[in-house]
Amino acid sequence: MNDFEEKELIKQDIIESGNIKEYISVMQKMPTVEVAEILWELKEEELEEVLVLFTADQQGEIISDFDFETKYWLFQHMDRRIFAEMFEHMHSSDRADFYRELEKQEQLLLLPYLTKTIREDVIKLSTYESDTAGGIMSTDFATVLESMTCAQAIDKVRKDAPSKKMIYYIYVVDQQMKMQGFVTLKNLIISPPNQLVKDTLHKDYIYARVEEDQESVANKIQKYDLVAIPILNEYDQLAGIVTHDDAIEIIRAEATEDMEKFMGLTPGDEESDYLEDSVWTHYKRRIFWLISLAALSIFSGFIVHAYEDALAALIILVLYMPMMAATGGNTGSQAATVVITALSLGQITLKDWMKVVYKELRIGLMLGISLGCLTILKVYVLSSNADLPVMYNLFNVALVISLAMTVQVITATLIGSGLPILVKNLGGDPTVAASPAITTIVDITGLLIYFGMATLFFDLQ
Amino acid sequence: MNDFEEKELIKQDIIESGNIKEYISVMQKMPTVEVAEILWELKEEELEEVLVLFTADQQGEIISDFDFETKYWLFQHMDRRIFAEMFEHMHSSDRADFYRELEKQEQLLLLPYLTKTIREDVIKLSTYESDTAGGIMSTDFATVLESMTCAQAIDKVRKDAPSKKMIYYIYVVDQQMKMQGFVTLKNLIISPPNQLVKDTLHKDYIYARVEEDQESVANKIQKYDLVAIPILNEYDQLAGIVTHDDAIEIIRAEATEDMEKFMGLTPGDEESDYLEDSVWTHYKRRIFWLISLAALSIFSGFIVHAYEDALAALIILVLYMPMMAATGGNTGSQAATVVITALSLGQITLKDWMKVVYKELRIGLMLGISLGCLTILKVYVLSSNADLPVMYNLFNVALVISLAMTVQVITATLIGSGLPILVKNLGGDPTVAASPAITTIVDITGLLIYFGMATLFFDLQ
Repeated sequence: MNDFEEKELIKQDIIESGNIKEYISVMQKMPTVEVAEILWELKEEELEEVLVLFTADQQGEIISDFDFETKYWLFQHMDRRIFAEMFEHMHSSDRADFYRELEKQEQLLLLPYLTKTIREDVIKLSTYESDTAGGIMSTDFATVLESMTCAQAIDKVRKDAPSKKMIYYIYVVDQQMKMQGFVTLKNLIISPPNQLVKDTLHKDYIYARVEEDQESVANKIQKYDLVAIPILNEYDQLAGIVTHDDAIEIIRAEATEDMEKFMGLTPGDEESDYLEDSVWTHYKRRIFWLISLAALSIFSGFIVHAYEDALAALIILVLYMPMMAATGGNTGSQAATVVITALSLGQITLKDWMKVVYKELRIGLMLGISLGCLTILKVYVLSSNADLPVMYNLFNVALVISLAMTVQVITATLIGSGLPILVKNLGGDPTVAASPAITTIVDITGLLIYFGMATLFFDLQ
Repeated sequence: MNDFEEKELIKQDIIESGNIKEYISVMQKMPTVEVAEILWELKEEELEEVLVLFTADQQGEIISDFDFETKYWLFQHMDRRIFAEMFEHMHSSDRADFYRELEKQEQLLLLPYLTKTIREDVIKLSTYESDTAGGIMSTDFATVLESMTCAQAIDKVRKDAPSKKMIYYIYVVDQQMKMQGFVTLKNLIISPPNQLVKDTLHKDYIYARVEEDQESVANKIQKYDLVAIPILNEYDQLAGIVTHDDAIEIIRAEATEDMEKFMGLTPGDEESDYLEDSVWTHYKRRIFWLISLAALSIFSGFIVHAYEDALAALIILVLYMPMMAATGGNTGSQAATVVITALSLGQITLKDWMKVVYKELRIGLMLGISLGCLTILKVYVLSSNADLPVMYNLFNVALVISLAMTVQVITATLIGSGLPILVKNLGGDPTVAASPAITTIVDITGLLIYFGMATLFFDLQ
């Protein structure tokens, strides 16, 4: 058992003991993210009592990890002065998030208890949309002037440091907060003390704009391996920073959202949580696509309807309808997954569509032939005693069905891989070409192929 | 147009100009990740000529971003001494990755050109599995002794810094490299110069073991918002560090892999790239699940076979088979997606399975009733002129089919949500309960429900 597992056990012990207050001295030394997980288990009344046993810094970090409802309960039930003190010690972006969710009336109840600096910070940050760089950025950054020497800069950072979470990149601004560049703390440490900041400055820096989408900000942090990225407003002033840990969370959340969209779920609001969300919320996220696709599948009905007489004449065809649809759906969804992944990882771009089609054609051919062979086998197993009309033999039937299967697999591969590229080309999100949509489309084309080939070869109509 | 887009345009211009060497002075000032993207477009012979125009540091960073094949070409064609110089300037984990891929013979050709320190480092790192902490860690970390004062420590870091990429966390070790704790550069800067390192030391630190899975390492970095995590060997010696940028890459790769597995793709090797992978590689990743599921769908065949007489008697039933299967598959896949996502985000654990089942039962009921109503409508649209046997009327038929649809949707919701939990409970990866697998299972149960209810109400057999 390693130390980490041991920690998890201690946490379990504390939670199960039912008397969390006894462990307060242990918890005061734990990382706040662990403490938040433990306190999460408490009733809100108890939570209020336990919270005050931590330092103001710890309190701020702990409640940063809570969801809005819990914070809101505390806001309503605690002494407002004590709540405001905790609130001031939260991360600046979490502070703004909470403030943004409050009603106008409630915001006014909180503001008078805040110091002037924090009041201004909260009001400013809360004006940005929550999924933009402005909405996620923090204002805990350190700045120096380019006219300082490295020694003076270190000295300023040292004085500012206790209140700043991130001092590894130090931003160089002019008197109007216009961004000039940045130095790393490493640069400052290595440089001769008398060297001027402007001589060690990185002027070619990566940045994002306040209105930029959060995903784009996260991608820049990833691409350039940054610890933090500066966020500039329209006047090129340094408005905030977004740090590497925010980037991880954004990337994880976006990956989840992509998968959900791809599986035909309507994206929920950002705070969605399986157990907390109501049945109605879950229902709403799922019903749209289900109803749309079920409505779309009326076309399958029409096709089968059109070939009813053919089916009545050769009832064996019904046997292989489910397999034809299922295999088509699986093939199409696989192809779509591969292409969407490659698109989102930047392995292919829209220019490559010819290459993709050619490649998928060859892959589809190989898959189609393999599954065609399997189908012949299957017809012999399942229908060897079938009661066929006198003019057909089992071999003919098996051959036609397996040929239809091969064509269905090739078509499904091309549709599954082509649709996401087409959607992206039209400016849409390729995950709209969701797996259920592809499955339903391929069901329809599959039935056309199947009955089309059957009537062609068997002269049924 | 912002600065970032401008940069992309410059890159495009350089690539399209066809004469990259002309732009060398521009490129020398660009971030190396951009330069790597530009040089990527060159033929390998040209690449060799252009590379040497950068500093050794830049060369190391640029080739770190190349794929194995390109590095290997350089290794084989460049003057070995020049290659070794670049190799020494690569990130230590990338160095080890490349070395690990070489044949024994080739490794021996490279080693003599390396300095002793780097030779030892490469040999040590390359012994770890590539998907463990040991396989991804870097050895570019700074250490101090706990007996030093903060001023002495800063002085040591300053001297070591040029060769160390990550000096924001400084690790405190004893003479045997046994980990004692860490200090941040921020701590050192803030503390009085004469304070001893051991008095500002964080002894309760998060770490990982060399053999630990890379996903677990990335999760710790995310959970505790770390810039880097120390990696310890079995003797508690500090063996390396894994940094935040590695964590982002791991999390992104794992999310992709989860989605691929969920869509029934066999995971490829880590270096898979859509255009570079051969048709045969793509075929191999897809065929396993397609063949297995097509084989499994023989059961659908058996069921239809068993009810062939019923179908012949009431051919209208065939019309609604595709819709029954498709809607069941979509509902099941949605439920599975929601549950797998909630499991992987830690929103639900195995203990919650009762709550999940109860919730999905209610969601399934609501979805089932909605889709049941739609089905009645659909039967009236599609079959209003149907030629029914004399003992049934359209209303009876519509009612039975829509009831079957409701039951199918509820069953599919329960199967889709239950299967991932069951698989996880048995110790497996919940994404094994892949969407295509659920679709195929729900096809089978759907046909049973459909024909079961039809024969029950219509007394067909």
